[in-house]
Amino acid sequence: MRLSPPGKLRFQQTQQFDITFGGAEANVAIGLSYLNEPSSIISCVPDNPIGKQALHFFQGHGVDVQHIQQTGDRLGIYYLENGALSRSSQVVYDRDHSAFGTLPTGSIDWEKIFEQADWLHWSGITPAVSASAAALTLEALKAARKAGVTISTDLNYRHKLWNYGIPPNEIMPELVEYCDVIIGDVNASKVFFDLAVPGWRFTMDPDYEKYQQFVSLLMQRFPQCKTVAITHRGSLSASDNRWSAMIADREQFKHSPIHELNGIIDRIGAGDSFTAGIIYGLRNFGTDLQKTINFAAATSALKHSILGDASLLSVEEILPLMEGDSSGRVAR
Amino acid sequence: MRLSPPGKLRFQQTQQFDITFGGAEANVAIGLSYLNEPSSIISCVPDNPIGKQALHFFQGHGVDVQHIQQTGDRLGIYYLENGALSRSSQVVYDRDHSAFGTLPTGSIDWEKIFEQADWLHWSGITPAVSASAAALTLEALKAARKAGVTISTDLNYRHKLWNYGIPPNEIMPELVEYCDVIIGDVNASKVFFDLAVPGWRFTMDPDYEKYQQFVSLLMQRFPQCKTVAITHRGSLSASDNRWSAMIADREQFKHSPIHELNGIIDRIGAGDSFTAGIIYGLRNFGTDLQKTINFAAATSALKHSILGDASLLSVEEILPLMEGDSSGRVAR
Amino acid sequence: MRLSPPGKLRFQQTQQFDITFGGAEANVAIGLSYLNEPSSIISCVPDNPIGKQALHFFQGHGVDVQHIQQTGDRLGIYYLENGALSRSSQVVYDRDHSAFGTLPTGSIDWEKIFEQADWLHWSGITPAVSASAAALTLEALKAARKAGVTISTDLNYRHKLWNYGIPPNEIMPELVEYCDVIIGDVNASKVFFDLAVPGWRFTMDPDYEKYQQFVSLLMQRFPQCKTVAITHRGSLSASDNRWSAMIADREQFKHSPIHELNGIIDRIGAGDSFTAGIIYGLRNFGTDLQKTINFAAATSALKHSILGDASLLSVEEILPLMEGDSSGRVAR
Amino acid sequence: MRLSPPGKLRFQQTQQFDITFGGAEANVAIGLSYLNEPSSIISCVPDNPIGKQALHFFQGHGVDVQHIQQTGDRLGIYYLENGALSRSSQVVYDRDHSAFGTLPTGSIDWEKIFEQADWLHWSGITPAVSASAAALTLEALKAARKAGVTISTDLNYRHKLWNYGIPPNEIMPELVEYCDVIIGDVNASKVFFDLAVPGWRFTMDPDYEKYQQFVSLLMQRFPQCKTVAITHRGSLSASDNRWSAMIADREQFKHSPIHELNGIIDRIGAGDSFTAGIIYGLRNFGTDLQKTINFAAATSALKHSILGDASLLSVEEILPLMEGDSSGRVAR
Amino acid sequence: MRLSPPGKLRFQQTQQFDITFGGAEANVAIGLSYLNEPSSIISCVPDNPIGKQALHFFQGHGVDVQHIQQTGDRLGIYYLENGALSRSSQVVYDRDHSAFGTLPTGSIDWEKIFEQADWLHWSGITPAVSASAAALTLEALKAARKAGVTISTDLNYRHKLWNYGIPPNEIMPELVEYCDVIIGDVNASKVFFDLAVPGWRFTMDPDYEKYQQFVSLLMQRFPQCKTVAITHRGSLSASDNRWSAMIADREQFKHSPIHELNGIIDRIGAGDSFTAGIIYGLRNFGTDLQKTINFAAATSALKHSILGDASLLSVEEILPLMEGDSSGRVAR
Amino acid sequence: MRLSPPGKLRFQQTQQFDITFGGAEANVAIGLSYLNEPSSIISCVPDNPIGKQALHFFQGHGVDVQHIQQTGDRLGIYYLENGALSRSSQVVYDRDHSAFGTLPTGSIDWEKIFEQADWLHWSGITPAVSASAAALTLEALKAARKAGVTISTDLNYRHKLWNYGIPPNEIMPELVEYCDVIIGDVNASKVFFDLAVPGWRFTMDPDYEKYQQFVSLLMQRFPQCKTVAITHRGSLSASDNRWSAMIADREQFKHSPIHELNGIIDRIGAGDSFTAGIIYGLRNFGTDLQKTINFAAATSALKHSILGDASLLSVEEILPLMEGDSSGRVAR
Ligand SMILES: [Ca+2]
Ligand SMILES: [Ca+2]
Ligand SMILES: [Ca+2]
Ligand SMILES: [Ca+2]
Ligand SMILES: [Ca+2]
Ligand SMILES: [Ca+2]
Ligand SMILES: [Ca+2]
Ligand SMILES: [Ca+2]
Ligand SMILES: [Ca+2]
Ligand SMILES: [Ca+2]
Ligand SMILES: [Ca+2]
Ligand SMILES: [Ca+2]
Ligand code: NI
Ligand code: NI
Ligand code: NI
Ligand code: NI
Ligand code: NI
Ligand code: NI
Ligand code: NI
Ligand code: NI
Ligand code: NI
Ligand code: NI
Ligand code: NI
Ligand code: NI
Ligand code: NI
Ligand code: NI
Ligand code: NI
Ligand code: NI
Ligand code: NI
Ligand code: NI
Repeated sequence: MRLSPPGKLRFQQTQQFDITFGGAEANVAIGLSYLNEPSSIISCVPDNPIGKQALHFFQGHGVDVQHIQQTGDRLGIYYLENGALSRSSQVVYDRDHSAFGTLPTGSIDWEKIFEQADWLHWSGITPAVSASAAALTLEALKAARKAGVTISTDLNYRHKLWNYGIPPNEIMPELVEYCDVIIGDVNASKVFFDLAVPGWRFTMDPDYEKYQQFVSLLMQRFPQCKTVAITHRGSLSASDNRWSAMIADREQFKHSPIHELNGIIDRIGAGDSFTAGIIYGLRNFGTDLQKTINFAAATSALKHSILGDASLLSVEEILPLMEGDSSGRVAR
Repeated sequence: MRLSPPGKLRFQQTQQFDITFGGAEANVAIGLSYLNEPSSIISCVPDNPIGKQALHFFQGHGVDVQHIQQTGDRLGIYYLENGALSRSSQVVYDRDHSAFGTLPTGSIDWEKIFEQADWLHWSGITPAVSASAAALTLEALKAARKAGVTISTDLNYRHKLWNYGIPPNEIMPELVEYCDVIIGDVNASKVFFDLAVPGWRFTMDPDYEKYQQFVSLLMQRFPQCKTVAITHRGSLSASDNRWSAMIADREQFKHSPIHELNGIIDRIGAGDSFTAGIIYGLRNFGTDLQKTINFAAATSALKHSILGDASLLSVEEILPLMEGDSSGRVAR
Repeated sequence: MRLSPPGKLRFQQTQQFDITFGGAEANVAIGLSYLNEPSSIISCVPDNPIGKQALHFFQGHGVDVQHIQQTGDRLGIYYLENGALSRSSQVVYDRDHSAFGTLPTGSIDWEKIFEQADWLHWSGITPAVSASAAALTLEALKAARKAGVTISTDLNYRHKLWNYGIPPNEIMPELVEYCDVIIGDVNASKVFFDLAVPGWRFTMDPDYEKYQQFVSLLMQRFPQCKTVAITHRGSLSASDNRWSAMIADREQFKHSPIHELNGIIDRIGAGDSFTAGIIYGLRNFGTDLQKTINFAAATSALKHSILGDASLLSVEEILPLMEGDSSGRVAR
Repeated sequence: MRLSPPGKLRFQQTQQFDITFGGAEANVAIGLSYLNEPSSIISCVPDNPIGKQALHFFQGHGVDVQHIQQTGDRLGIYYLENGALSRSSQVVYDRDHSAFGTLPTGSIDWEKIFEQADWLHWSGITPAVSASAAALTLEALKAARKAGVTISTDLNYRHKLWNYGIPPNEIMPELVEYCDVIIGDVNASKVFFDLAVPGWRFTMDPDYEKYQQFVSLLMQRFPQCKTVAITHRGSLSASDNRWSAMIADREQFKHSPIHELNGIIDRIGAGDSFTAGIIYGLRNFGTDLQKTINFAAATSALKHSILGDASLLSVEEILPLMEGDSSGRVAR
Repeated sequence: MRLSPPGKLRFQQTQQFDITFGGAEANVAIGLSYLNEPSSIISCVPDNPIGKQALHFFQGHGVDVQHIQQTGDRLGIYYLENGALSRSSQVVYDRDHSAFGTLPTGSIDWEKIFEQADWLHWSGITPAVSASAAALTLEALKAARKAGVTISTDLNYRHKLWNYGIPPNEIMPELVEYCDVIIGDVNASKVFFDLAVPGWRFTMDPDYEKYQQFVSLLMQRFPQCKTVAITHRGSLSASDNRWSAMIADREQFKHSPIHELNGIIDRIGAGDSFTAGIIYGLRNFGTDLQKTINFAAATSALKHSILGDASLLSVEEILPLMEGDSSGRVAR
Repeated sequence: MRLSPPGKLRFQQTQQFDITFGGAEANVAIGLSYLNEPSSIISCVPDNPIGKQALHFFQGHGVDVQHIQQTGDRLGIYYLENGALSRSSQVVYDRDHSAFGTLPTGSIDWEKIFEQADWLHWSGITPAVSASAAALTLEALKAARKAGVTISTDLNYRHKLWNYGIPPNEIMPELVEYCDVIIGDVNASKVFFDLAVPGWRFTMDPDYEKYQQFVSLLMQRFPQCKTVAITHRGSLSASDNRWSAMIADREQFKHSPIHELNGIIDRIGAGDSFTAGIIYGLRNFGTDLQKTINFAAATSALKHSILGDASLLSVEEILPLMEGDSSGRVAR
């Protein structure tokens, strides 16, 4: 559950929180649902009215919730204060002891789930939550591989979350080895895999040569991986960003145009909407990686116009921007 | 009645609609009222609390409502979702069978109305609503001409509305022939009059030469027309636009400066506020078309800062921008 | 779609509408979903963002929406102003020409639907909408009978809606003949079937003898009918009511206790929540009509505490009141 | 301007004020407008956006504002915290130095105003504001008498307002002598006229004998007065009241039934709505005082269901309660 | 932190939470601050913006926060859904692992604190939170006794909170032995001390004889205790209650009148406001227990009219109800 | 008290005001409190719930309110309509007769106050309010000088406020002579001291040479003054500004970088947050004026992202922008 002061208020100014529900994987599931790709969340929420409020949210947005168990103590929370100008957004995590973080291995019938699925997506946030969540992830990956399901991951390093004692570099490498598609990230790869391109400093617009080296290193390290996709955010301020993305397989490296995002509504979940766009593209545009990266970049550029963690965008809405029309003209 | 999710929420996110009332001609009437030009709406609303809510709105904004009849079945609605970044605003019309659309000819005593008026404004949205609305418009135009009243029109082509069987090119030409002032539009003129300047592609900033040719064609086609005014919107995104305008009579062609509009609040109704500015200018600045176009362009540039369909701007507020001061400094 | 001024504001005071979605049958479906009885709505909504907003609402509340087609022109609306003290609530219908009202017969594959259902509920509001909706209802009833599905109806007479030319007494009798369960109503039965108990004047608390006679007349008239259930509202004011209910089959007549409802939040949809309670009771309490009527009366008494058309109440929440504890104590 | 925390919040809990505009006479004017009696406010507001906001409010509610001058320093304010249970509503006046309180005599062309009016209503709040306001009132009364206009007054004693140096008993008697209709009040009459019925203690329901004596005393004291009307409030708590009223001329004394008001929304302005009802009755029901008092009592009983100072009730809405139906049933 | 859907919405209906901050002892501290008794909270909140939001709230309401440490992981939460009619309020606790629950003994310099205090209040909610919180409570009690500070407790049994392994009957008796004043409770005393009056069934209005026996048993069991005070709630529904209270020392037994509370705004925290009233009374009314119990009962009756956990009532506001005037009349 | 329509609504569109409390000196006090510099407001508010609401606000934000007396008639108000694009913000002052403006000299025990303070800040708004406020300011300055307290002033010329008869140039020079630190302003200096740099026209970005001359003139005129600091606002529109600042002592002249502020939330109080930053810098960064001006400029640049008059920014939040990182990236 995400709790935010309305508009751009600071925590000490507000007497109300806006509520949405999210989490990296759930955001991807909602994004896919709006792209007309059926999706299902595998998780758990407490068996109380707050847990049911979360279910109401997900099923309202068209996601299958039959694999969300109702058990455990509490729903994880994060508080978000929206930034503006050069004032950063504040995120306060309160996710320890959440229902999902205490779900033991063996509680999920993966085999049955994968009978009706052909894609599994997970993110680095899940194993960051607790040792049991990490074990559950590994369990899922093994079952998915056995069932012949495509696996994607978003590395998603959250420094504030990894606090249960085992460092991420002892957990993540084994998990990522199962993945066919990696949503990559430079910082995460340094922390998780000690993998870095020498002499690379952050630039406002992407340095494609360096990114290409980075992809090579990542693909070398993970032989199962067939596709790597990466976003690049140039932050002029909390409100104005430059946004673009790249994708590569073992042969091609394609990048999207750069989207100028002036007057951002909500940048949280942009990465998750990008992942939804990548999954959609890989399933629908075949080997045309240029089309896939343009679609995913446009999806996630548009996500910045939507309040809440999730992308609520149809394919019809994404195509014009994907094809270069950023005008946002009214249709009437 | 216009119903919109608050702020930039999408339809599927909202549990409340913000309500305003509008319609092309009503917006012009309110705009004129704030410019201290007495105005009256000739229309009808159903005799129920929703109709009365509309009357409350118009009379609150200083418009005379004594010529709004209370009859008919329903108030026409349009739903508006505000866009942001490159996400377009969505307009959903629900105007069929509205009270006004079913008002028969002969129900309005035009003669009496024009005894106390010297200007009639109508827009292309009215004859788009129904065959009877088109007939009523013609009736009004004949009576206005007879009464010696100045007539202006805003072509306002709304593709989604023209669905009652008779195509606009069989209706509009006859109606526009009565008009002294035309708020022109390139697309509308193609559809309504099959009138086009060859080899003209849309450009972000206006191509004055082409516009001048366009005005010539329009004036040739409509001999009664003495003045044509046109706006030009360069859309960088739903939030950031470049806005300017032109005016011409049979001798002069004048254009306004280009207004950079970054951080638009609401672009709906900008054209109607422009019309209000043109009518104000023609009535108050005599033959100084440069003054008129600068005033109308400034009025409509400022309209983009106001939520709702209508311009709520006084002459005092418009003059500084008209004279080149865009600073929006606080007076205290 | 129901649009209401927040709180107890009048239409002319509000600048916002609270949005919920409902309709007699949809309200029953949501009520059943919260009682853990799977339910599905068979209807249609326009293929636009407002139609999708309705789907979002229903599926969020756990109702299956796969049989809601996306077609037609507009979503029917009703405006509701909440009353207080002796000021009545105002309902303004704007349902003509709605998507469902224009859906032709033959557009729904009833056979396939009834393969997976064992109960069909409809209300007198549906055939009131249009001739085609009445025909569609008849089509459904025939198919349901053929499939051996139990049929229930809520007579639900809405004077303002029956305006398409055929009077209700030419439509309803044939439709009600198919029904196993009737949610009866004294006024509706007079209008629909010209059926009345002589010398009966409305009393604040129910006159059981008269009601028993009324049930006999109804059962005589409709031989297929096995169960009749009726609610009785004693209105002290818009805020304070006395609420009770009765049920009968061809042998028993049982009534609930009278619930004193002081400080009503929203009385709209109380009848629909009662219907949900009756259906739940008949499916779960066997022939114990006393239990069923006490459950349904408690369900609908509690509905008055919930804003919106639908009952969002679990069985666990209903049982205490059903067993006589009206205290509303906090559990902690 | 009235500023109130939303709902039942206390001042120290709120970060927003709900805004309405009122004042005893303005409330009567709006109430009459909703009863289809044309009304006009004679007052002034400052020539700034806050003054214009007030004009917007009054004209939206159908009151003629052409006699509201735009001059003076500030708009008077009162802050209202809504009470509940036995917690009293709090009123904080900030009306000193208001535009109206500083308007000098001679600034209003009474003669012209009374050419088009046949009734003048004023209340004891006006001369309480300042010495100049008292002088202006006297000026108005003289002009009204000369023009043959009927004059009514509501005594309306506000202890907190009378603070400009001259005590009310030196001002009010002269002013009330001009009045044809007096909305009486026991406390006010003691303070203003030193007029009291011996041995009278407040009772929850009215003691008609005492009230009759009180009316006699008042009528003796003011020979011009033809009609006296009085309300009686029995306060069980801030939320639950018993409300009734009486009227008398020099021959009859009639009282209304007692209205039980449980769950009051807003009791401010109830007296003003009563006055509107009395004026309506005297103008429309001739000498049938019973009808007039029942109408005015029902009007003001219903006012308690409306947020804000003013009654927004049509004659059609009042008649059922006037005729004894308090049920507040939904019409549909 | 308390998070509630606005108004009477259910969890599954809301997209916003109203925020207040409370906890039994904090509520007492705020209540005392409004009674002009300086108060200080001894607790801790996490060193993040949510913790600071809590500090902002408490110091805004006049409570000294210098003894609230900024440490620990998270702020405890409880979710509250407000009930209505016979629908109960729902409380969902999410207080495990809160900052205060993990504060170790030895972290607070009690000696220094008690140098400037003469009263310590704690409630049974504190030792319910965790074993360390129970130990901290004992530490405080020993230090307070040593410093000669008066000690009061509110037994406050919360079944859902006592879940850390040690049952309350092994913790509470030792703690309560230190107390001079006990806010008693029949259920809590059964669970904590296995203390019960034989043959006592709950009645809507208090059975004073039984209560007197109960007080005797409690005083016997706790020789240090000088005063016992108890509230009695007769719940007709979630909205309508009958509320009264009793107090006793070793010689007298006094009870308040019964307050009828119809249209309750918020009953949470009523007990805490009662405690504040008792502490105020014992400090200001000497041995006049009748005055103390009438004051505390009136305080807590009025609390039901205030949204949020805390009583924001001044002595001036309480006196009229304490003296029997429940009318809630407007002062103006 | 500041009352504003929510968001960017115009006065005539709103039915609610957002409430905050401010005033130049109070804003500085809150800004310092968030920078961990203890601060106290010396003022008065009326002894009514609105005055207490102000106290609630200030103490909630950590400011000591023990020197705010509760006396006088009314709390001063200003109404603020937020501008957008080229539409200016509107400020309507209603501050005459405020509690502080009528506080007589001699009512404040300056000597005692300055025993516990080492810095006094005042602004040109205070002596603008009334003659007595000007006298009180002089009284404070004499006492502060005597106590050896550092004195700073913000010239803050508000044309609309100086209306009590004595022109500012007869008041301000004497007061400013006491000051060690002056927050300077070109317009104010012309009006107050008839001091101007010849041939200087406003430029979008600062002309440092001219500013340096201006500082020289000011320092010559006020020999007590040791430090002058000035902000420079280049207004592209109400939403987009360029913001920078300068500081000088009798030896150095340093300027900050220029901050581009696109998408301003609230520019009111930016000057006051700058003053807080200057005071913080002078107290913490010694003679490093570059550091002080960069800190104060960053503080006030960030203030533009916060709704309300006051800066709610910690030192930790300001340092990154001060060091050149404007990215507003999310920390998680
Ligand atoms: Ca997340
Ligand atoms: Ca996210
Ligand atoms: Ca329109
Ligand atoms: Ca429009
Ligand atoms: Ca319905
Ligand atoms: Ca319904
Ligand atoms: Ca008033
Ligand atoms: Ca009033
Ligand atoms: Ca608590
Ligand atoms: Ca509590
Ligand atoms: Ca200020
Ligand atoms: Ca300020
Ligand atoms: Ni907002
Ligand atoms: Ni606050
Ligand atoms: Ni605040
Ligand atoms: Ni929702
Ligand atoms: Ni808003
Ligand atoms: Ni939703
Ligand atoms: Ni939602
Ligand atoms: Ni939302
Ligand atoms: Ni309005
Ligand atoms: Ni509300
Ligand atoms: Ni209005
Ligand atoms: Ni209004
Ligand atoms: Ni929902
Ligand atoms: Ni507060
Ligand atoms: Ni607060
Ligand atoms: Ni509310
Ligand atoms: Ni909802
Ligand atoms: Ni309005």
